[in-house]
Amino acid sequence: MTETAPLRLAIVGLGTVGAGVIRLLEVNGDLVARRAGRRIEVVAISARDRNKDRGVDLSAYEWVDDMGSLATRNDIDTVVELIGGSDGPALTLARQCLGQGKPFVTANKAMIAHHGLDLAREAERTGVALKYEAAVAGGVPVIKGLREGAAANRIMRVYGILNGTCNFILSTMERDGTAFADVLEDAQAKGYAEADPTFDIDGIDAAHKLSILASLAFGTEIDFPDVDITGIRHVLAADIREAAALGYKIRLVGMAECEAEGGENVGLFQRVHPMLVPTDHPLAHVDGALNAVVAEGNFVGRLFFQGPGAGEGPTASAVVADIIDIARDEYGPAFAMPAEWLQRQVKADAGQRIGRAYLRFLVKDRPGVLAEITAAMRDAGVSIESVIQRAQHEDGGVLVAIVTHAGALSCVEDVLRRLGGSDSLLGAPMVMHILD
Amino acid sequence: MTETAPLRLAIVGLGTVGAGVIRLLEVNGDLVARRAGRRIEVVAISARDRNKDRGVDLSAYEWVDDMGSLATRNDIDTVVELIGGSDGPALTLARQCLGQGKPFVTANKAMIAHHGLDLAREAERTGVALKYEAAVAGGVPVIKGLREGAAANRIMRVYGILNGTCNFILSTMERDGTAFADVLEDAQAKGYAEADPTFDIDGIDAAHKLSILASLAFGTEIDFPDVDITGIRHVLAADIREAAALGYKIRLVGMAECEAEGGENVGLFQRVHPMLVPTDHPLAHVDGALNAVVAEGNFVGRLFFQGPGAGEGPTASAVVADIIDIARDEYGPAFAMPAEWLQRQVKADAGQRIGRAYLRFLVKDRPGVLAEITAAMRDAGVSIESVIQRAQHEDGGVLVAIVTHAGALSCVEDVLRRLGGSDSLLGAPMVMHILD
Repeated sequence: MTETAPLRLAIVGLGTVGAGVIRLLEVNGDLVARRAGRRIEVVAISARDRNKDRGVDLSAYEWVDDMGSLATRNDIDTVVELIGGSDGPALTLARQCLGQGKPFVTANKAMIAHHGLDLAREAERTGVALKYEAAVAGGVPVIKGLREGAAANRIMRVYGILNGTCNFILSTMERDGTAFADVLEDAQAKGYAEADPTFDIDGIDAAHKLSILASLAFGTEIDFPDVDITGIRHVLAADIREAAALGYKIRLVGMAECEAEGGENVGLFQRVHPMLVPTDHPLAHVDGALNAVVAEGNFVGRLFFQGPGAGEGPTASAVVADIIDIARDEYGPAFAMPAEWLQRQVKADAGQRIGRAYLRFLVKDRPGVLAEITAAMRDAGVSIESVIQRAQHEDGGVLVAIVTHAGALSCVEDVLRRLGGSDSLLGAPMVMHILD
Repeated sequence: MTETAPLRLAIVGLGTVGAGVIRLLEVNGDLVARRAGRRIEVVAISARDRNKDRGVDLSAYEWVDDMGSLATRNDIDTVVELIGGSDGPALTLARQCLGQGKPFVTANKAMIAHHGLDLAREAERTGVALKYEAAVAGGVPVIKGLREGAAANRIMRVYGILNGTCNFILSTMERDGTAFADVLEDAQAKGYAEADPTFDIDGIDAAHKLSILASLAFGTEIDFPDVDITGIRHVLAADIREAAALGYKIRLVGMAECEAEGGENVGLFQRVHPMLVPTDHPLAHVDGALNAVVAEGNFVGRLFFQGPGAGEGPTASAVVADIIDIARDEYGPAFAMPAEWLQRQVKADAGQRIGRAYLRFLVKDRPGVLAEITAAMRDAGVSIESVIQRAQHEDGGVLVAIVTHAGALSCVEDVLRRLGGSDSLLGAPMVMHILD
């Protein structure tokens, strides 16, 4: 079809995604070659354990034990890293490859979140591609959407549903009225959630992805440590019911905003936490394991991208899209502009943000408790929009749900401080902000 | 910031979009320069009427009367065509520029739908960029999404809401229960619809866009003449009510599918028509003037892109995204692969498609009419899933709405033929397919 030389790959890491990339290139190879302008060939493969059964025939590919050797092999044009983990062998390999001028494709959100800036600098020094479309929102091309599609805009904020496991759990709780722990257990049994689900349900995975989106959206240095993170462990089925009664769904939302003053950025806000999303907002219709990202630009308005956020096929689709870009020689700086032009931002003061919040208390069933809570709110300067009190709750307490009027969110924190010593409360209150 | 030479533009056509591009480059110029790696400078402008007040100060830019002269000017790096129209001055300019090796950006869906293949060949011959992101779905980067983001996939089908005017009219009819003609008149008064709305409401504009998407999705030669087109003129408020009662919304959907048999494409199906969309499908939540595109890939699954489909800001955003790609030197063949590799497809036999349909009849209020209709359906081999008959309808007739079971859609056409001579019917029946 073409006499252009093929692009020769080494694939390192042969779990679900690695096997998926190999399968995709086998199934769609001709089509991919037409679109890439040249064939994509897997030359070498490597992983920790050669003898593991991966359900695909790998005998056609050269097995390499020393993955570091791939960085300097002249018969390898691009290395694809699908090992995972922020440090360890993935990072070592990335440094070796980029340092030696070997183009590098990864699906590793943790590594990019922690070391993306250093790796981008190294890629620029040696003049090669560093691509990571699969690191955020799986098969959904949001890296490309921000880096290129929305490139003409000042992005006002970027936010979305970035973890399919959490979204599956929340939307299942919503549909069935079941408790978090039961849904999680079921999801683990079915393989939808990891045996150790911490990274997912505590919001860390979503925070990795959010920090990458923020860097691309705002032209800022990636800053994972400054993401405020709250997971979904403490969301009750009752919260979902109350939210529904008020016209909202609960979603784990990662949101980033670069606060501008007179054209200069004055602080980067990054937060992952369960939020109340109005039912007429596109994120409210994102159910199951889907991911979705919203980017709001000063010219384009609101862009919305949605699709499968994980799994073999979608992730392989994103990895191979990166490979095709390299084969086409259509790539540039990893974070849309040279690393030295990315701005370092201070962390914004989240308490200064204005918004509405949902507060939920489980309280003892005795007189005066609502007076105590509302007095604390008055003293903290928080104005109440609506209150729901339900007599019966499964945990023996009474549920009080309150939606505030818009105000500084630091005042809501003050309410919690004021009620901190109260023995009327059963357990810690839950605060969720409302997406407006 | 950088010593790389700026990219120097000529902008031809200074209507809403042309003025928007100039304004965007003024407002976001520094940011765009950081992302593009070089400044983008407007050097020359041209339009039919120099003296028209466009609400922007254009005195800083050189006015050019002879737009054809831009094709050969050495101080112009890229020409941006925002005149519109499938032929005439836009096409002449495109041929001049591409023929002379001048990179070319356009928002002109009609021209790309009719002449895109020829223009792509010319761009390849002279080795320059031909870019048209703004031609489909306004600010939503769906060209990039298909051409690059989903490039690793065999696309099974691509479909979406491609005309904001129609979607505004249908969703307003839905919200207010008003008649098509009243909503159209109101939209025209407010400037949401053109004085001559034919291109929009009769589905031609959506068909232009669909033919472009189909070419990118399937690697086929663009084929606008073979798009089957039905507009929204004959959708009644009553249809929207009946659809809602059945769990659907009515949307003007452009859908393309390349029917494959043993890996070989055997026919290209392209159709724009009002469809019944299940309320749990993402397209059902696309309201107002938004556009949205769904692409279903064999590895990625269902990708969904949504955003503002028209207007100054969104369209300018897409045009400048193309310009940034050119400034970055990140572009390739206009239809993702060299024009000679695009396959020519025969038109698929739409009647062989299997699906469910909604049929609506306005009939005289007299005995035996329902028997007559259902007999025709029996004789045509169409099986009925549900029937709604409403005694009172605003036009004096009785409304009969029928949903069929899945079957060959040619049989539904046969029902209409069998009822063609019946004097029981008041006006032509309405057939809408159901999105499954």
